[in-house]
Amino acid sequence: MNASFIIIGTELTRGIIQDSHGSLMSKELTHLGIHVSEIVIVPDDGSIEKILEAVMRSSDVVIITGGLGPTSDDMTRPVIAEAAGAELEKNEEAWAFLLSKLGDKAYGANERQALIPHGFSIIENRNGTAPGFYGYGKGTLLVSLPGPPREMTPMFYDTVLPLLREKLDLPECERDEYTSFITAEAKLEELCEEVDPTLDWGTRFQDYRISLYVSGKSKAERDESVRKLKDKVGMMRLVDGNTDALSLAINALKKNKATVSVAESCTGGLISTLLTERSGASGYMLGSVTGYAPSVKRDVLSVSSGIISGKGTVSYECALAMAEGVRNLTSSDYAISVTGVAGPDKDEGKDVGTVYIGFAGRGRESTALLFRYSSWGRASIRRKAATTALLLLSAYIDGADIKQIAESWNYI
Amino acid sequence: MNASFIIIGTELTRGIIQDSHGSLMSKELTHLGIHVSEIVIVPDDGSIEKILEAVMRSSDVVIITGGLGPTSDDMTRPVIAEAAGAELEKNEEAWAFLLSKLGDKAYGANERQALIPHGFSIIENRNGTAPGFYGYGKGTLLVSLPGPPREMTPMFYDTVLPLLREKLDLPECERDEYTSFITAEAKLEELCEEVDPTLDWGTRFQDYRISLYVSGKSKAERDESVRKLKDKVGMMRLVDGNTDALSLAINALKKNKATVSVAESCTGGLISTLLTERSGASGYMLGSVTGYAPSVKRDVLSVSSGIISGKGTVSYECALAMAEGVRNLTSSDYAISVTGVAGPDKDEGKDVGTVYIGFAGRGRESTALLFRYSSWGRASIRRKAATTALLLLSAYIDGADIKQIAESWNYI
Repeated sequence: MNASFIIIGTELTRGIIQDSHGSLMSKELTHLGIHVSEIVIVPDDGSIEKILEAVMRSSDVVIITGGLGPTSDDMTRPVIAEAAGAELEKNEEAWAFLLSKLGDKAYGANERQALIPHGFSIIENRNGTAPGFYGYGKGTLLVSLPGPPREMTPMFYDTVLPLLREKLDLPECERDEYTSFITAEAKLEELCEEVDPTLDWGTRFQDYRISLYVSGKSKAERDESVRKLKDKVGMMRLVDGNTDALSLAINALKKNKATVSVAESCTGGLISTLLTERSGASGYMLGSVTGYAPSVKRDVLSVSSGIISGKGTVSYECALAMAEGVRNLTSSDYAISVTGVAGPDKDEGKDVGTVYIGFAGRGRESTALLFRYSSWGRASIRRKAATTALLLLSAYIDGADIKQIAESWNYI
Repeated sequence: MNASFIIIGTELTRGIIQDSHGSLMSKELTHLGIHVSEIVIVPDDGSIEKILEAVMRSSDVVIITGGLGPTSDDMTRPVIAEAAGAELEKNEEAWAFLLSKLGDKAYGANERQALIPHGFSIIENRNGTAPGFYGYGKGTLLVSLPGPPREMTPMFYDTVLPLLREKLDLPECERDEYTSFITAEAKLEELCEEVDPTLDWGTRFQDYRISLYVSGKSKAERDESVRKLKDKVGMMRLVDGNTDALSLAINALKKNKATVSVAESCTGGLISTLLTERSGASGYMLGSVTGYAPSVKRDVLSVSSGIISGKGTVSYECALAMAEGVRNLTSSDYAISVTGVAGPDKDEGKDVGTVYIGFAGRGRESTALLFRYSSWGRASIRRKAATTALLLLSAYIDGADIKQIAESWNYI
């Protein structure tokens, strides 16, 4: 089976943004055993007409992205209708959907977005107004999706991929999803290959975590391989389903009706930003102190001058004092702290990536743990430290032995 | 003038790597005023033959990357020779170059890499063995470059771009770059069209700012249109060049050898995270307090209970007290504060998007300003508030009238 993509966007042929659809779709279709024979990027100027005709001759599937906006220069609809030899008609399902999204604002130009070639089916767009659609023209499956990645991506995964599997007569693919924390994507891929090179492993990096998808063989065999992978990276590093460290921390706080506060140095406020990101944050998050300067650690967080001058600000003692300091200051149930070297230069003689994370809680023994992140770059070290703090906060609240957990970790 | 690109690489159509040549060349050719009509990505399977013929018909320039390796499946050379109606011949200059690079290892298969269509000129490859080449076929300029970016990029800049200027006798195309703050991308595009629909406006959204590119007409005409656009959005909202609000704030702090601290509520630590993002942050950033709960505003930031119960935490008085509170706490030269309603629900009877931003400084009158952001969504409101705070911090440090600046703003 041959597939081609036509990617429409003047901002692409003007080099203002870089296409990512071609690469995403290529990866997934190749994965299904489909040969991608051509990816064509053209401006929104109607040149799709000529291209579509040519690629249809050599392709069983043509996926077109972009050109579905409400303005008149968006030519995708009429061109596909023409190629399929079908009339464009107002699709009532699409129009009802547009009305539900836009309400009173759905007039005039938007009506165009409900036009679909006769006999085609619509593809629901959860994140935008333009539905996608698919159908056949001269024996070729034609799929049309909107251009914006946040609209296109879920439509591609939820509808187009299953459609292709069905067309290829591939069995319903069982795919297990996991979430991996504080691992480099390349390292995770390497470990997956080590565990079982015959399984289909897919990874997707998402800032604070990596989604891991596993398919192939039997469920029991996949589970056994994932168990081995979990052993390799250590406790809590690979968890079932699609989640993130922030959700784990929030769930633990909510379950225990507990509040939290944060004292940050190298993460600079990142953990606090995360803990206030979701609505309802005032139910568990009281506040934070970023003590970037030693004077603020001392004057606001009550870290003693003795610790600062004797042990240094990147030390077990300082992390412990910061966590206890912010907990006292805010009267929170739990507190976490982070102090370390985000780089690019060593600090206090300590290597870049050296980070202490402290934990304190009402009626609980305070503690701090040392991590040595292998990452290069401030942003990566800050993200890893924030993820670690949130992940272990959930374990600390649950009463787990966080020292044992941290000691089980490899490849951080 | 029309250009097309053919980008050859099976690793591209299998989704293993993402193409960047298309975007790079599009940007630079657009900059020269050349219309890029098509970017085609194909595998290394000879399918370039059919494609090249088709794109040559509609293009004055075709740039082909990839397929120049020493193995037999690299078809670019014979296909271009065929399209140009020229024989492939061993180019002595290219062969001498290969020998100098490979020495004794230059045998057999490598000899193929010195084959160039008769009448074509070679393009030196500083970082690899395969030279590029260019010449004419049926009136179209055909340029062939190797695929690896570290080989292709310098060849494109050093030889191809100058060649296009010279051979095609193009006038210098000028493009001006600006940075826009706290505007929705769609709104900015609409305003650009209002100001002058005959100019080429390009926008690129980048989290905390939008890059704006303007080309066409004369420099004086572009400047006049940008001046009108600046008037429409208000002071400081559209600045020359590629910058961001964080850089403006950091530059003002450094220039004045000043330190800063931050008190945050709805932004939750975001401004502090930004101010500690870059290396060298300890030179100007002392620390911050996120007073998410009213108790932390009172106990840590010293906002009086009278303000909290009388005026509310989303008030001019609270923002002012937070800024002064964190400045006193950290002894910083300057302080900024943010308190507002990030949503999704109203708070204290105030609409989502209502944000007060406070400013305090050594020997300066403290003040707070009210903003009503039109955005939906917590993330967007938090980003706009953080950008506003950093932008106006730079003005406050410079001694500007920030009230007047804020009052000039439209469409925030």
